[in-house]
Amino acid sequence: MIITQIHVTPVAFRDPPLLNAAGVHEPWALRTVVEVVTDEGLTGLGETYGDHDHLAKVRECAQRLIGLDVHATNEMYRRIHAAVGDVVTDLHGLTGAATKEKSVDRVHSPFEVACLDIRGKAAGVPVSDLLGGRVRDAVPYSAYLFYKWAGHPGEPDDRYGPALDEAGLVAQAALLIKEHGFRSIKLKGGVFPPDQEIAAIRALHEAFPGVPLRLDPNAAWSVETSIRVGRELDGVLQYLEDPTSGIPGMAEVSAAVPMPLATNMCVVTPQHLPPAIASRAIGVLLLDHHYWGGLVRSSQIAALCGTFGLQLSMHSNSHLGISLAAMTHLAAATPNLTFACDTHTPWQDGQDVVRPGALRFTDGAVTVPTGPGLGVDLDRDALAAMHEQYLTCGIRSRDDTTYMRRVEPGFSARRPRW
Amino acid sequence: MIITQIHVTPVAFRDPPLLNAAGVHEPWALRTVVEVVTDEGLTGLGETYGDHDHLAKVRECAQRLIGLDVHATNEMYRRIHAAVGDVVTDLHGLTGAATKEKSVDRVHSPFEVACLDIRGKAAGVPVSDLLGGRVRDAVPYSAYLFYKWAGHPGEPDDRYGPALDEAGLVAQAALLIKEHGFRSIKLKGGVFPPDQEIAAIRALHEAFPGVPLRLDPNAAWSVETSIRVGRELDGVLQYLEDPTSGIPGMAEVSAAVPMPLATNMCVVTPQHLPPAIASRAIGVLLLDHHYWGGLVRSSQIAALCGTFGLQLSMHSNSHLGISLAAMTHLAAATPNLTFACDTHTPWQDGQDVVRPGALRFTDGAVTVPTGPGLGVDLDRDALAAMHEQYLTCGIRSRDDTTYMRRVEPGFSARRPRW
Ligand SMILES: [Mg+2]
Ligand SMILES: [Mg+2]
Repeated sequence: MIITQIHVTPVAFRDPPLLNAAGVHEPWALRTVVEVVTDEGLTGLGETYGDHDHLAKVRECAQRLIGLDVHATNEMYRRIHAAVGDVVTDLHGLTGAATKEKSVDRVHSPFEVACLDIRGKAAGVPVSDLLGGRVRDAVPYSAYLFYKWAGHPGEPDDRYGPALDEAGLVAQAALLIKEHGFRSIKLKGGVFPPDQEIAAIRALHEAFPGVPLRLDPNAAWSVETSIRVGRELDGVLQYLEDPTSGIPGMAEVSAAVPMPLATNMCVVTPQHLPPAIASRAIGVLLLDHHYWGGLVRSSQIAALCGTFGLQLSMHSNSHLGISLAAMTHLAAATPNLTFACDTHTPWQDGQDVVRPGALRFTDGAVTVPTGPGLGVDLDRDALAAMHEQYLTCGIRSRDDTTYMRRVEPGFSARRPRW
Repeated sequence: MIITQIHVTPVAFRDPPLLNAAGVHEPWALRTVVEVVTDEGLTGLGETYGDHDHLAKVRECAQRLIGLDVHATNEMYRRIHAAVGDVVTDLHGLTGAATKEKSVDRVHSPFEVACLDIRGKAAGVPVSDLLGGRVRDAVPYSAYLFYKWAGHPGEPDDRYGPALDEAGLVAQAALLIKEHGFRSIKLKGGVFPPDQEIAAIRALHEAFPGVPLRLDPNAAWSVETSIRVGRELDGVLQYLEDPTSGIPGMAEVSAAVPMPLATNMCVVTPQHLPPAIASRAIGVLLLDHHYWGGLVRSSQIAALCGTFGLQLSMHSNSHLGISLAAMTHLAAATPNLTFACDTHTPWQDGQDVVRPGALRFTDGAVTVPTGPGLGVDLDRDALAAMHEQYLTCGIRSRDDTTYMRRVEPGFSARRPRW
């Protein structure tokens, strides 16, 4: 099955004003939809970031993959490695520093996912079967709570309303759980001073007893603060995510707090694994096939983590249904991915490029599609509309910090902040 | 594609009297051929050890895999894990100590390979394509030299004749290179005192200048001896394989000798990797899909090695063409497997269970089959004849030591011997 065409379409969709250590989500989130077309007429889907520089790389590499067989991911990776220059550009700083290898992995990912989609369709099996077969019929996700404004500045409140204190977060969690049935809760922190976020976690613990809780301040804290917070939340947090930046700092915190540390910031590319493992910096890796080079490479990383006793969860940026399908297949086929995964899906409020119905949350879990490939179909009208939104929205790269400064001119995204 | 039947057939084939640290190869080598049959009529092939206890496990597990889809290797592995008891049995001691995990991996391997063969046939692609696609069109193997007797006791000389000194080894290398075109040479050592084997390596170095050389004494040496030999062979050996036993001993040697150490003895299952990496015990891992759990798991181990800067080569026991095909597909699709692989193939002198012609050595390399699946077909007459040989040969488990003692009653396989 030879690749004859690749369509690369940037899209934009509405995103609520979700707060984080870098600032606040802009009114539009960007993604790129990749469609790989083969000589036999099968089409596969991939989804990746929509930021300008990344999009340019994806577009350039797409040209170089024409003529390859969909199985030839080694050669695909080699070509992308050759095409992605040594100038690396960071994406919004919330998934760790950029490196050449990470850029290659990020560009490779949507093409690889699309090729697996095609292979699954050709073989009549779900993508999870190409990864060893599902070990769970549904993949649990967590309720991903954010501090947030009631609405974007100058716009009416969104349906989630404000969450700027404990009561707001508890109400948000209650709504997400009511609508999706989540059984784990993650709070994006790094927004308010640590004591306020400790209080928020305690309030959630009280409101949802027995529900596993996680806190992710995106490295907004110093080592000292991280240790203090970690100790104060003993017995309350399932894991503490990226309290501080860098492997050495995480290792210091890890040695001093009772719960495992998780990361999608200090270990984001294979070369980070040896030092992180040697220094016992983390206990949980948040896999993300978007920057770990696709589904098969993520499987390999999962196997490595199993070998070294690292546990697995899954990271998420704002995304659409192609990614949710890919994440679900990967998680379903990864025996040692035992924590509920993160997803931003609820915040998209049904906006999607895939036809509705394929992916549903039941009791907080997405049933693994059992149809061929990813199990999702492109909604071409939605794609066209979202592409039009991309063209007109005025945003070309995610920049939470600049957006935040329009409202709070003195805002600083420096780390550590506390 | 549902598995409806599995045929497990032990076979025996003539093996020359090849010497090693454990003794000498018996007149018959054992293997087991696994045929997996699906409801759609496709059959896949796998090959594994023929030793009695292992064969019993393979047979028992085969029963438990009926009804599984050929993609469901996670579930396959789980069932085998549950079925393989905690009583582990060693196989001839030349591939390291047995563990429960290693037993599971060993049993899983032939079924997994057979399933990949089926998937490749169904998709019309070679198995290498299911592993990411080949990055080389031919896989280089090494000339695998052995000290050997002229023939088995009481039998006429075999066509290789004796190799009990430097001249014999050089002649053997010349023959193997003439017939197969090999461009790397490995000597199985641990047979004579180290100075004699040093002299042999020097003689080979002189006779075949520029040809990479390896020496594998199967842990017959103490740490001190290993360091002495390693230093004496500076600039002559590409790598030194398992000079001494155990990860701590290998780490000591590794720190003191100029060339990388390779192993198929101290790191033979995933749980050995963390301590070996932490102590820098090895520089080269000899992959072997027969005990690393099959081809996909071996790919994952290869990725792990790449992440940690370990180089890769490939280990071999006496084997037939199904294994050679599987090894070739794996090596072809593993970008960081850059050393010539080991194979015993020449010593089988054309005896095989697969139809001739599919696998040929040209300039020491096997051209990667490009047909569907493994690219080899079972020769049912040969299989039947080799099974008959199994039934009548009287050997049920490989035991080089006992066989050696029939000739040399005082022989000891203790390690270290020197
Ligand atoms: Mg995070
Ligand atoms: Mg060896």
